Amino acid sequence: MSKILTSRESDYSQWYNDLIIKGGLADYSAVRGCMVIKPYGYGLWENMRDQLDRMFKETGHQNAYFPLFIPKSFLSKEAAHVEGFAKECAVVTHYRLKNDPNGGGVIVDPEAKLEEELIVRPTSETIIWNTYKDWIQSYRDLPLLINQWANVVRWEMRTRLFLRTTEFLWQEGHTAHATRQEAIEETERMLDVYATFAEEFMAMPVIRGVKSPNERFAGAEETYCIEAMMQDGKALQAGTSHFLGQNFAKAFDVTFTDKENKMDHVWAPSWGVSTRLIGALVMAHSDDDGLVLPPKLAPQQVVIVPIYKGEESKQRIDEAVQTIMKSLKAKGIRVKYDNDDANRPGWKFAQYELLGVPIRIALGLRDLDNNLAEVARRDTKEKATYSLEGIAENIESLLADIQNNMFLKAMKYRDEHITQTDNWDEFVQLLDSKGGFISAHWDGTPETEEKIKGMTKATIRCIPLNNALEAGKCILTGNPSTQRVLFARAY
Amino acid sequence: MSKILTSRESDYSQWYNDLIIKGGLADYSAVRGCMVIKPYGYGLWENMRDQLDRMFKETGHQNAYFPLFIPKSFLSKEAAHVEGFAKECAVVTHYRLKNDPNGGGVIVDPEAKLEEELIVRPTSETIIWNTYKDWIQSYRDLPLLINQWANVVRWEMRTRLFLRTTEFLWQEGHTAHATRQEAIEETERMLDVYATFAEEFMAMPVIRGVKSPNERFAGAEETYCIEAMMQDGKALQAGTSHFLGQNFAKAFDVTFTDKENKMDHVWAPSWGVSTRLIGALVMAHSDDDGLVLPPKLAPQQVVIVPIYKGEESKQRIDEAVQTIMKSLKAKGIRVKYDNDDANRPGWKFAQYELLGVPIRIALGLRDLDNNLAEVARRDTKEKATYSLEGIAENIESLLADIQNNMFLKAMKYRDEHITQTDNWDEFVQLLDSKGGFISAHWDGTPETEEKIKGMTKATIRCIPLNNALEAGKCILTGNPSTQRVLFARAY
Repeated sequence: MSKILTSRESDYSQWYNDLIIKGGLADYSAVRGCMVIKPYGYGLWENMRDQLDRMFKETGHQNAYFPLFIPKSFLSKEAAHVEGFAKECAVVTHYRLKNDPNGGGVIVDPEAKLEEELIVRPTSETIIWNTYKDWIQSYRDLPLLINQWANVVRWEMRTRLFLRTTEFLWQEGHTAHATRQEAIEETERMLDVYATFAEEFMAMPVIRGVKSPNERFAGAEETYCIEAMMQDGKALQAGTSHFLGQNFAKAFDVTFTDKENKMDHVWAPSWGVSTRLIGALVMAHSDDDGLVLPPKLAPQQVVIVPIYKGEESKQRIDEAVQTIMKSLKAKGIRVKYDNDDANRPGWKFAQYELLGVPIRIALGLRDLDNNLAEVARRDTKEKATYSLEGIAENIESLLADIQNNMFLKAMKYRDEHITQTDNWDEFVQLLDSKGGFISAHWDGTPETEEKIKGMTKATIRCIPLNNALEAGKCILTGNPSTQRVLFARAY
Repeated sequence: MSKILTSRESDYSQWYNDLIIKGGLADYSAVRGCMVIKPYGYGLWENMRDQLDRMFKETGHQNAYFPLFIPKSFLSKEAAHVEGFAKECAVVTHYRLKNDPNGGGVIVDPEAKLEEELIVRPTSETIIWNTYKDWIQSYRDLPLLINQWANVVRWEMRTRLFLRTTEFLWQEGHTAHATRQEAIEETERMLDVYATFAEEFMAMPVIRGVKSPNERFAGAEETYCIEAMMQDGKALQAGTSHFLGQNFAKAFDVTFTDKENKMDHVWAPSWGVSTRLIGALVMAHSDDDGLVLPPKLAPQQVVIVPIYKGEESKQRIDEAVQTIMKSLKAKGIRVKYDNDDANRPGWKFAQYELLGVPIRIALGLRDLDNNLAEVARRDTKEKATYSLEGIAENIESLLADIQNNMFLKAMKYRDEHITQTDNWDEFVQLLDSKGGFISAHWDGTPETEEKIKGMTKATIRCIPLNNALEAGKCILTGNPSTQRVLFARAY
């Protein structure tokens, strides 16, 4: 049987694209850099979104919705922010089309030019803090704990499905606090939420850290991040939580009176994850036969395929499957029965491997006579024979086992791909061969980081939280360093 | 106590705006015609969205996501569609800003002009059918049952919070079928879903009908709608389901081969409801003291307010409330306990009436000693004393009673506001005094409808489904007519 996908070894990048398209997650669109998220990919996103949303609500946040458009002048109000975000963005200049008097369809009506251009939000700090000005007067209005699920647009020159698209879906939390300390606690709390989500739901181990100044969010005093490792040895930033200090409160004049009736600017974090996580999920776990999805997020957790000849045996299997389905559904397991006549079992097996359904149950007449079913797990490809007695309990625990195994496997790979070095040549060679995170000393200057990036394409992914302090010499300059940081080439 | 809101009688329009702002549903934004949906309003939208989403999935639909932007040329491909939608829309012409060389912040970079302008989607038929071209080849690919939750932009000249905003949130279903009959069935099925949602969840009776050609969706062969009646006698279109025939399939060349290997264009419906429904919900039920929300959609269904003097009595009440809360939550009831010291009970009572919380439970020490609580329902303002024994069951049935009562009340109002007339002067006078739907004969021509609209601002809201045929004379022209239709002034 010919392989559906390019193998990871022959072309990792092509393997990824093949998988996204053939796995039914997304498709290219007619608009440059924008993708269509197909039903299967959107189902995955719904599961991720719903779980994150529960975690946001459990930590006291509420959702709201702010305008898609940002007046151009807003972007200029925070000096660092405008440098980071104002440049590559979609600009709305007109609000009307008209029929081409020369008969060429419709044209932009030059008379419908906006007085001030509108930017399609690349992120919403500015429009949100402009709103918070009206919502916050007193310490009684704080903390204000708001999240938004939205689409955003950044005019990227080089795009990749899910990983970097012109438009993407995300959530952005924007909270307001009375004290610096409280804002930092919120920033760290949400980093923890992201890390928990990545590890417990995506089965993807992450390193928590802070960014170097070069990689900081435009307008932040500190950017916290979670960094994951993909199967090709490249790192992927999976979520960020920013401590914005009073920068946006000052830019938009958001002040409050405290209990002692003193006035101060409000303190702010912001935090976000996006549909990029789907790319991370795919690259962290999948193999040459298709997607490998963690049970907690898989749109379908179990698929049942009947093996039969003739209508009579099909009917018997159909009946038995109804009982199995019922017991699985009673446990909240997402199960599908594929008894479509048009495709053969072998085709279905390959198809559900491609789709990454965690468990496949095959049921034939002989199995049924013996009260048995063949159960195959997607992650290890192992097959086993299960009794139909108590199958729901056993499938439930197998799902938990798959979830756990996927995490441990990814963790093992990640841990094997953190390499320590104090030698520049080895540093360069590691990047070209083994890849992964390289733990090396850095003199702490943006110039050195920039030089290393220029020479190797590797950036500082993060300075891990609770990093051990250790005197050493910078891997490039030999200047004194106080700690190792993690370098990697990254998505 | 001074009233928080303008009364409906003195200024219905101002009452509505007051209620949206002071009820915490939405706020004006810095962007013309765009609103901010505040947490309380968004919570309401989440409940509406989640319920609709369940109903869409129960009828076999899946969600997907298509690009925000539509190439300008796409709009021209369907002749009627471009007339209806290409005119008032947000046009992206550039993809980059740059620093103003004269130091005036940022300006649009004239070198970053798009070759083809992009339209921010006013609706997504064109971009979706352009995609379906790649997804549909054979009858095996049909039906394709897809829905999208998204934001859309229509450059409205006159805007009202929720009812008509430049940007709004909605869902748009776009399905593809092998036969005309199947597509019409889908169109009607989704109209039924909307009507069921409006009546059973929003407690808002609706009339199902079809639009006259003048009011049809641009590109549709038939537009089905549900029409509701607001408390000021104006109608509100609460949802539409369009039968698009093969118009978009032809415009985007979407064909399929049927079982006999014959090629045909695909048949299409599209259907949508939006955040406008929040405006409808508010106007259908609320009163001069605030929102009146149907229990099934209210973000909070029950609020408990303690009445106490001193810390000791507060502690006793707190403890008792924990037990009540637990029993209510066990029934899935959304309950909040407001024991904030900063506000007095009287202020809280007014506040939760403003917010439309269906049931308020007040608990004082004397009540507690007698194992009683005071229960007030928001819809009728009636109060009753409930035993704490079995209070959860009784609150649960009271919520059901409120839901039902709100529907019956709105139904009674609606039915009292359908008036039949065969006299033009009375027709005009009814519109100016009583309002409501006016059931009158119409000669079936667009010209007459246009004239009536020009003279009275009333439009044909719909031709009810299963309308009785009845010979008569057109209310304006006296020409022969075969049936009555429903006229009204509308939002």
